[in-house]
Amino acid sequence: MKKAYLAVSIVFSLVVLCLLGPARILRAQEKGSLSIMPLPAHAVLGEGEFPIDGNFGIALKGYKEPRLEKAQQRFLDTLSRETGIPLWREAILNAPDFIIQTAGPSAAVQQLGEDESYRLEISTTGVQLTASNPLGVLRGLQTFLQLVRVTPKSFSVPVVTIDDKPRFPWRGLLIDSGHRFVPISVIKHNLDGMEAVKLNVFHWRFADNQGFHVESKKFPLLQKKGSGGFYYSQDEVREIIAYAHDRGMRVVPEFDMPCHTTSWFLGYVELSSGQDPLRSSAIDPTRQSTYRFLSRFIGEMAALFPDSYFHAGGDECDSKEWEGNPRIQKFMRARAIKDGGTLQAVFTARIEKIIASQRKTMVGWDEVLRPDTPKDVVIQSWRGPESLAEAARNGYRGVLSCGYYIDLNQSAAEHYLVDPLGANAATLTSDQKARVLGGEATMWTDIVSHENMDNRVWPRTAAIAERLWSPQQVQDVDSMYQRLAIVSQKLGFYGLRHRLITDEMLERMSGEMNPEPLKVLAAVLQPPRLYQRQELRAFTDFTPLNRLDDAVPPESDTARQFNEIANRIASGKAIPQDWRQAREWLVLWRDNDAKLQPLLKRSFLTQDLAPVSQNLARVAEIGLQALDDLQGDRLISADARQRNIEFLRLSAKPQAVLLLMVAPSVELLVQAIRTQ
Amino acid sequence: MKKAYLAVSIVFSLVVLCLLGPARILRAQEKGSLSIMPLPAHAVLGEGEFPIDGNFGIALKGYKEPRLEKAQQRFLDTLSRETGIPLWREAILNAPDFIIQTAGPSAAVQQLGEDESYRLEISTTGVQLTASNPLGVLRGLQTFLQLVRVTPKSFSVPVVTIDDKPRFPWRGLLIDSGHRFVPISVIKHNLDGMEAVKLNVFHWRFADNQGFHVESKKFPLLQKKGSGGFYYSQDEVREIIAYAHDRGMRVVPEFDMPCHTTSWFLGYVELSSGQDPLRSSAIDPTRQSTYRFLSRFIGEMAALFPDSYFHAGGDECDSKEWEGNPRIQKFMRARAIKDGGTLQAVFTARIEKIIASQRKTMVGWDEVLRPDTPKDVVIQSWRGPESLAEAARNGYRGVLSCGYYIDLNQSAAEHYLVDPLGANAATLTSDQKARVLGGEATMWTDIVSHENMDNRVWPRTAAIAERLWSPQQVQDVDSMYQRLAIVSQKLGFYGLRHRLITDEMLERMSGEMNPEPLKVLAAVLQPPRLYQRQELRAFTDFTPLNRLDDAVPPESDTARQFNEIANRIASGKAIPQDWRQAREWLVLWRDNDAKLQPLLKRSFLTQDLAPVSQNLARVAEIGLQALDDLQGDRLISADARQRNIEFLRLSAKPQAVLLLMVAPSVELLVQAIRTQ
Repeated sequence: MKKAYLAVSIVFSLVVLCLLGPARILRAQEKGSLSIMPLPAHAVLGEGEFPIDGNFGIALKGYKEPRLEKAQQRFLDTLSRETGIPLWREAILNAPDFIIQTAGPSAAVQQLGEDESYRLEISTTGVQLTASNPLGVLRGLQTFLQLVRVTPKSFSVPVVTIDDKPRFPWRGLLIDSGHRFVPISVIKHNLDGMEAVKLNVFHWRFADNQGFHVESKKFPLLQKKGSGGFYYSQDEVREIIAYAHDRGMRVVPEFDMPCHTTSWFLGYVELSSGQDPLRSSAIDPTRQSTYRFLSRFIGEMAALFPDSYFHAGGDECDSKEWEGNPRIQKFMRARAIKDGGTLQAVFTARIEKIIASQRKTMVGWDEVLRPDTPKDVVIQSWRGPESLAEAARNGYRGVLSCGYYIDLNQSAAEHYLVDPLGANAATLTSDQKARVLGGEATMWTDIVSHENMDNRVWPRTAAIAERLWSPQQVQDVDSMYQRLAIVSQKLGFYGLRHRLITDEMLERMSGEMNPEPLKVLAAVLQPPRLYQRQELRAFTDFTPLNRLDDAVPPESDTARQFNEIANRIASGKAIPQDWRQAREWLVLWRDNDAKLQPLLKRSFLTQDLAPVSQNLARVAEIGLQALDDLQGDRLISADARQRNIEFLRLSAKPQAVLLLMVAPSVELLVQAIRTQ
Repeated sequence: MKKAYLAVSIVFSLVVLCLLGPARILRAQEKGSLSIMPLPAHAVLGEGEFPIDGNFGIALKGYKEPRLEKAQQRFLDTLSRETGIPLWREAILNAPDFIIQTAGPSAAVQQLGEDESYRLEISTTGVQLTASNPLGVLRGLQTFLQLVRVTPKSFSVPVVTIDDKPRFPWRGLLIDSGHRFVPISVIKHNLDGMEAVKLNVFHWRFADNQGFHVESKKFPLLQKKGSGGFYYSQDEVREIIAYAHDRGMRVVPEFDMPCHTTSWFLGYVELSSGQDPLRSSAIDPTRQSTYRFLSRFIGEMAALFPDSYFHAGGDECDSKEWEGNPRIQKFMRARAIKDGGTLQAVFTARIEKIIASQRKTMVGWDEVLRPDTPKDVVIQSWRGPESLAEAARNGYRGVLSCGYYIDLNQSAAEHYLVDPLGANAATLTSDQKARVLGGEATMWTDIVSHENMDNRVWPRTAAIAERLWSPQQVQDVDSMYQRLAIVSQKLGFYGLRHRLITDEMLERMSGEMNPEPLKVLAAVLQPPRLYQRQELRAFTDFTPLNRLDDAVPPESDTARQFNEIANRIASGKAIPQDWRQAREWLVLWRDNDAKLQPLLKRSFLTQDLAPVSQNLARVAEIGLQALDDLQGDRLISADARQRNIEFLRLSAKPQAVLLLMVAPSVELLVQAIRTQ
């Protein structure tokens, strides 16, 4: 499901609902000292460490295939980047102290549910990685890379024995190349990031009303008319499939139908339901020619994508377009089809047959689930764990995406605590639970570009990856954030750009070499959550995404940390360092406005930030006064407090499409002051 | 010429000599308000600006070829990155306000001295770029991109008319893929950087004693035995040649012979002069089989590289290897060859004939110039403008590299003020001057890896590019540094990593997410200049280059700026802002040590920085005291002053293979205090 603006209010309430579902259990981490994500199923820490230096050597034993050799090479490249020690060729020549033992092959085309388990034994003198097939080796190598750290003696990994396997077999990331074209290079480094956190499904969506971005040889007008010149050639698609296969990932293509399909009609107007194809978004499900077209098209795409699953979309159909078309009305009346939803079911049944004839299993969004939907169709749920649990009860397999919409600027913690088997699924039988295959983070590109995509996807997707891989009881949010910071840095070494984007964009929008005061402001701002951005600014497909709400990460680390400190101060649990840190930040924020204002005037992209910066200064002043009052145990007048609280609440509201994230934390401080 | 350690002392004195040559004329810039590099030959600034927004449209007129279309697309990609406005497809569809008018084609294989001129006319309503061939268009597009800036109204370029052409026809960058293999991706983005600053020769060196890194199909043991598995396939070479051609650059290959060739002998021992080929670095110039081999090899490579020039090295031969070999001695006696130098001349003459038989012109380092060297051989000078001028007097064409050794950690200003026609060349006739073709920056990789290469090459190479492109009288160092900072930021938008590398490496070596105190220290340190690093640490080909002297840029901007302030304070020309800034920095440096010391202990890569950090704190204390004394016009005892000066000079010496660049500036302050 994408975020057609029509659906905002429904989506809003459903997303909130499914996010509140799982209880926020904050348990202490049993495996706390492994700073990796996802945490392994089982690990026993030993004493000491295995050093990594120029003598490091590696060897493949047992079953071999080119993919393993490439994996070994990439492992050495990454290890070299993590340490600065040139191991990429030397480690092959050195005596091996890292042995990779592979029992046998995995399936030629990666299958859902294949064994991904591995055993990684690290002693002070050697490393043994054992797996039944190359998939487990790939997972184990990533675990090792994440364990690398620098110590007073050398780079090293800790002595540990890890027995690991995933909780769910379907752990995906959707990248939406329909709304906006996403260059191959961006796809590739996101696949690198997916590999690092052990995701195994790249769900690649190619078309939407806005564009059709993959090459069809049978229907070339799809990309010729629908792509604006930017589409993936079939060779590039094969390149990405091979790239994903090398990293132990399946590629599931999605062609959303019968709606969100305006771009198809630019080349093939006869598919359209409407009189004016450019104002139609729905395929005409009543014509035989539609099915002849789709049969050939799906045949072509099913051959291009080797995966056993084929996603046919099916979400958010605007039935009114059909119900308002006299010809389609006539068709419906003649067949006693009572409404658009039922007409879509007729369409879905035909499409399912076409997909099945290609020996593939259909995947569809919630809406494809109807009483007579074939039982092997996999349901991808944007409506929430409820609908997923309901599907499982009715014999359907499903994948959760509700709660994993990483374009909506929610916190890593919010995503982390959504469990595909949480809330309503708790009452499922174990057979029914087994039908819940996992989940997918969804990177929709309505108002995200390939430029800032990395900073939306990472590092938060690592938290979702942990939810889908690690045991259900791994739920300590503090531990997650601690490890997320470390993994985020590692992902930078692996080539992801999420940590660089904000500064680059701040430099560009300000025209300054080092816009320090703008960075100070940006560090405590977030874009509004869920669908509020669209309510605050009119976005079209051509709106440049080059403002501060595009540049800042979805979650402010500084604001989160300040909030923790404010909580401790307000509840009387603060240590002296908390008071110092709070004061230091508040002084920085108070004094920042005077430095920032002249800079903001110089660029049309920063002028609207003037009141945001003023608010931060005033919020900080109130915070400093609150610290003084609390430390001096002073009483203030209820009136004065109320005025401050009102200002803080006003400041917490969106301004320039941004949220000042520290205002609520300062309110905590103010609320803690005693009144006269 | 590479930096075999043997040659250090000679090279040292020559480099110093050639750097002192050109007078340091600091003229005011006539075209000061264009913040671009290289400055154009002629520009007339107008009033107003041309805005860049979503309506921007571009069109090619006149002569067309695929290279121009690709250039237009890259231009739009870059413009989109510089502005965040998605123009990459839209600008082709919009009504064109930017017209590119090309008169005709350039040579199919780019030739030395082809017309690269262009005219760029920017008005408030449109842009016209005119050139006689695609090379001029490429240059003009880069000028436009560098002009883009953000204003209170929009992104825009200033109204200006530029008539531009290069001063020298040979403007190169050498990348040494002989000492260390440099991945294709690194080559590519350096070519992007070269394009941005209008360089036109990529000098690609493939082999040295340490490795042979390109595929020969005729002699496959060269790469099989000599490369450790890392070499450029011929397809990759062709890919790079095409990539360079698209950017208006020639690719001149270098195969250095007869010395620096140990890696050749791993596969073809019969080429070697010595009994033990692994201890031999010189090809045997006395055997007929050598010339049969080289004839076939050069034939293969001459076919692979379309450029008319072929570089055969010829530098730094150790004659003793020949003179100590009885068989070679016998050969020399029989032919009355009096020494190794003369024997090399015999070899060079044969090689020159082989190259000429491929219809190519030979290029060689200084040493190939002998009384009987054919007049069309091009001399690349590592010895200095003197030897270049001498060659020109004798009828040879030449290219200057002395003074442009960007691996030696000199300042941009030092490189900038070296002129191929400076010093001794001033007395040349205009015919002789025309034989000085230009220059080449040289990126040797003895102790530079592909990881930190960008931060060695950029941004300083832009200063060399300006020297080679812009009129000779463009010599204002202050203006150069101002523009260099802006261009450095632009180069970041174009994909170069030079501004990112230091922080990444500091994070890695410290193991910290944001090692702020280490950044403060790093910002005032530089690696020692010229060949001093090798004197201070034993480097082998396997030494990891992951320490602070690898991480920091060759030139500290902070130290340079502090030095300017200290100079103004010491000479009584400081403004209040200078005093404030000096004090702010000194306080930061003084207080940094206490924060940094605990961090340094945690990593084996930072432990040796403890005394460097202590020194910075003490230097800063002395500096703060000096500011107090100067502001209070206090007299101090000559003894106390002398003790401080001694400490400052000691602190200015290398420690942990690093130079504390602010110590001499603090000495300026101390020297300015009056004594009792």
